[in-house]
Amino acid sequence: MKLSYKIFCATLALLCGVGAMAQQQGDFYASQREGWAQKAEASKPSLTKTVYRPVGLVESVYDDAAFQNWRMVPTEPMEALYGVSLKEKPVSIVDFGRHMTGYYTFRLKTTHRTQDAPMRIRFTFAEVPSELNTPLDPYKGTLSRAWVQDETLTIEQIDCDITIPRRLAGRYMKIELLGASPDFDFRMEDMWFTAQSSADHATLLPLPEGASEEIKAISEVAIETLHECMQTVYEDGPKRDMRLWIGDLYLEQLANIYSFRQHDLTKRCLYLLASLAAEDGRLHANVFERPEPHPQYGSHALDYSLIYNVALLEYLKATNDYETARDLWVVAKRQIDDAKGYLTEDYIFDAARYGEPIWLVFDWRDGYDRSASIQGLMIWALENSSELADMLGNAAEAKEWRKLAATMRKAARKHLYDKKQGVVLSGPDGQISYLSQVWAILSDILNEKEGQRALNTVFAMDNVIYPGAPYAYHYLIEACVKCGLHEEARNRLVEYWGGMVERGADTFWEVYDPENEALSPYNFFVINSYCHAWSCTPIYFIQKYPQIFCE
Amino acid sequence: MKLSYKIFCATLALLCGVGAMAQQQGDFYASQREGWAQKAEASKPSLTKTVYRPVGLVESVYDDAAFQNWRMVPTEPMEALYGVSLKEKPVSIVDFGRHMTGYYTFRLKTTHRTQDAPMRIRFTFAEVPSELNTPLDPYKGTLSRAWVQDETLTIEQIDCDITIPRRLAGRYMKIELLGASPDFDFRMEDMWFTAQSSADHATLLPLPEGASEEIKAISEVAIETLHECMQTVYEDGPKRDMRLWIGDLYLEQLANIYSFRQHDLTKRCLYLLASLAAEDGRLHANVFERPEPHPQYGSHALDYSLIYNVALLEYLKATNDYETARDLWVVAKRQIDDAKGYLTEDYIFDAARYGEPIWLVFDWRDGYDRSASIQGLMIWALENSSELADMLGNAAEAKEWRKLAATMRKAARKHLYDKKQGVVLSGPDGQISYLSQVWAILSDILNEKEGQRALNTVFAMDNVIYPGAPYAYHYLIEACVKCGLHEEARNRLVEYWGGMVERGADTFWEVYDPENEALSPYNFFVINSYCHAWSCTPIYFIQKYPQIFCE
Repeated sequence: MKLSYKIFCATLALLCGVGAMAQQQGDFYASQREGWAQKAEASKPSLTKTVYRPVGLVESVYDDAAFQNWRMVPTEPMEALYGVSLKEKPVSIVDFGRHMTGYYTFRLKTTHRTQDAPMRIRFTFAEVPSELNTPLDPYKGTLSRAWVQDETLTIEQIDCDITIPRRLAGRYMKIELLGASPDFDFRMEDMWFTAQSSADHATLLPLPEGASEEIKAISEVAIETLHECMQTVYEDGPKRDMRLWIGDLYLEQLANIYSFRQHDLTKRCLYLLASLAAEDGRLHANVFERPEPHPQYGSHALDYSLIYNVALLEYLKATNDYETARDLWVVAKRQIDDAKGYLTEDYIFDAARYGEPIWLVFDWRDGYDRSASIQGLMIWALENSSELADMLGNAAEAKEWRKLAATMRKAARKHLYDKKQGVVLSGPDGQISYLSQVWAILSDILNEKEGQRALNTVFAMDNVIYPGAPYAYHYLIEACVKCGLHEEARNRLVEYWGGMVERGADTFWEVYDPENEALSPYNFFVINSYCHAWSCTPIYFIQKYPQIFCE
Repeated sequence: MKLSYKIFCATLALLCGVGAMAQQQGDFYASQREGWAQKAEASKPSLTKTVYRPVGLVESVYDDAAFQNWRMVPTEPMEALYGVSLKEKPVSIVDFGRHMTGYYTFRLKTTHRTQDAPMRIRFTFAEVPSELNTPLDPYKGTLSRAWVQDETLTIEQIDCDITIPRRLAGRYMKIELLGASPDFDFRMEDMWFTAQSSADHATLLPLPEGASEEIKAISEVAIETLHECMQTVYEDGPKRDMRLWIGDLYLEQLANIYSFRQHDLTKRCLYLLASLAAEDGRLHANVFERPEPHPQYGSHALDYSLIYNVALLEYLKATNDYETARDLWVVAKRQIDDAKGYLTEDYIFDAARYGEPIWLVFDWRDGYDRSASIQGLMIWALENSSELADMLGNAAEAKEWRKLAATMRKAARKHLYDKKQGVVLSGPDGQISYLSQVWAILSDILNEKEGQRALNTVFAMDNVIYPGAPYAYHYLIEACVKCGLHEEARNRLVEYWGGMVERGADTFWEVYDPENEALSPYNFFVINSYCHAWSCTPIYFIQKYPQIFCE
């Protein structure tokens, strides 16, 4: 892959002046990478460990009013399991009462004669009840089957602590005894979960006065979501993917600024992404920490690369850490330079300018056209990057980028905005979507009034592309706030995130469509992540705009 | 269990003078245990490691002429697996070409993009082809399902060596890819098996001159069987049970004396068993090494306890290690004293003398009555123990035990021997079995002529209890040798063990009945052990009696 990626870069270099320049320079960041990697390592937070024991045994109950049709009902105290032979109670589900990320340990005790054979137990850990009640095989998901947290252990020695080596995330543990010798007996003696996070509740900002019970509940679940995703990077989801994506970093950072305020983690992530950028200077959309830090080669998403700049600006504003911002300025500048290469002569972003359209994340929704959205996002990033440039004394770039933003805004109004309908259209078929309006508002393509009209228009439409994931909902709420639709912002936040709370969420989900609880971008909702970073931003909204969300 | 075992001992003490004496003394070996345990530890052999790589890929072929209906057919070289994506070849079976005991390591290599998810692979290791071709679930065996060597691994990181933590034994490895991310590709790059044994082929005795090809082949398989079972104790089977039983110790020791001649392992096992004897001084039938040496509590088999004495004698004769024999003399004496408590006033052994019949191993065969056999075995043990007593200068015991043996012999001839039919009868129904004759011969209840007649009589009978396992076959061959049925001894050895060789055995099996290849004492032949210590004694016979087996 590395080779073909280089060929791809070389091809790009021939087509794109900036790319060609990068190519001539070889490794764009050669002299800085090592220093950045060291700073990323130096900012790695320590993980706080907390031990939780189950609160009791539960039973899965089918209920078509419950989320995904299953709910858990408390049945017996743990003593009902601990007090009998595991052979007499070969299947049970324990409830830890909360979402946790970390390691599961159990202890089996010999109660009769001597262990003379290994035993086999399947442990299945779950974030939500449906994970324990949906047939796993034959497996239908498009992501790896191994993300499902079912582990079958051959246990050669009991009467000692046994820890499942894999890190787990969830609340419910199903235990199924699959094999044991008839010649001895044993019971479950104890179990516990060593939860870990780099977030510390002691540093939490208090909730603003006047928050309703609903808002309080949403805030609590959002805080737990962020808490679980704050490990040694901002992970996207502790159950699945377990890595650092730029898009999640930005949203987690916003939430962190308004809750735990542990900015070293942001610093670490900004440096880590920079140290692992491609040779041509473009950021990878996501990186892994283990075994050694490395990127997902070939993963470039231009919307995410531009969001990096906004994250860097937010970091600087939150911390006044000019040293880091100056260090990483070159990265921010490079992402803008790269994006500029996709503009047509008309100053419209063309994702297919060099052949196959490049990858733009934005949302999971099928059929959603991203071209108006990226036009808006790039303008928004240019404005934020200009602010960063100003703060760092780079007046030339600030000026150039503001000018470009203005030109792109004008182009957008000319080519994308349908004044008559009052909405921004996207793509060759003039698609109308929520997100096209959202990004037009966030980028000031539309003014406040126009923004209100655009959003109210799509809200009233039936056949419109609406957001598919909380990640996109974040920007929708932000746009509502920006264009003065405050009532709408609050109602939608309460309706969407509050809907998850009502359905029993301990943490907010990766995917949530109130119309379709089985929605999955992976063809199997069991492998959706039910604790997902990009769903945690209600904390940010509630704390930043108390007059809107806590009046 | 420990408590109820003590209650059982106390009950026994009330009924049995010897037991009562032991009870009064508290822990019978209190002062010696620790020293014995240290000597056992000091004699622990080091394990020689040998790395084997697969010889190629094979395919399971159904063939009703093959052992258990399945045989392996070579198909492709390993490159056919190593050269393609594992996704393209998600199921394969590799053949290592030999039986091995140890640890399996593999290495997966990323070939396209970046690993972005764990993968899941099931590895199933097998001693014989049927293990990979018989449905495992729903599981029908009476022993733990976990003995089956199928391990499903969640692999979080590739491009590194991964070793299955469980020790395995076998020849064939089936590999099934159960889950992987669509976003990257990988292949199997290498795999190897780190085999271990405390036996060293360099110390092997050469085969006597004149051995036939058949005998050579049997000898080779027997040597491999012993080699695999010689670990840090004489294990019964490296795939299943993996522990030290007195009965296996005795037979492995005999084979070792005539092959590898590594007597320290015998010394270790004798001390280990002694150090872990019950508080009343009786030996446990089997012990475990891990996590700390410990017995299978409550496992007492009186035939095995008496065989310990014979093993100690054979050890002394092979090594002249008088220090060990003197150390352990007290153990040997205690086993005889215990056995004496089961004699009736008529000097007939009564296994049910204190209630429920005690456990006697002898053989797996259903319905086989052991009462004549234990009468013979006890006499044989008394004679051997007398020889031990003589060598150690304990004349009083030697005299007493020889006298008791003679009295028991006389009693047996009177109560068990049917002179008219020329066979020994066993139990209330006068059951006729091979083993009743065998033990009457080995104990000189029958003289040579009578022994020949008895064996020839049972050989000619249709409805007779014949041996069910190689363990019992060993004593049958020994009896044939002793009573001068040399042709019979050779023919039966060639027919029985040679039958396994013909059916493709790499190592000799725990259970083999030419009439019923699916025979299993555990209701599921897949969990039979196919490399079992008690099947290794052809080496002993071939080397000790070359005039019979190699003329």
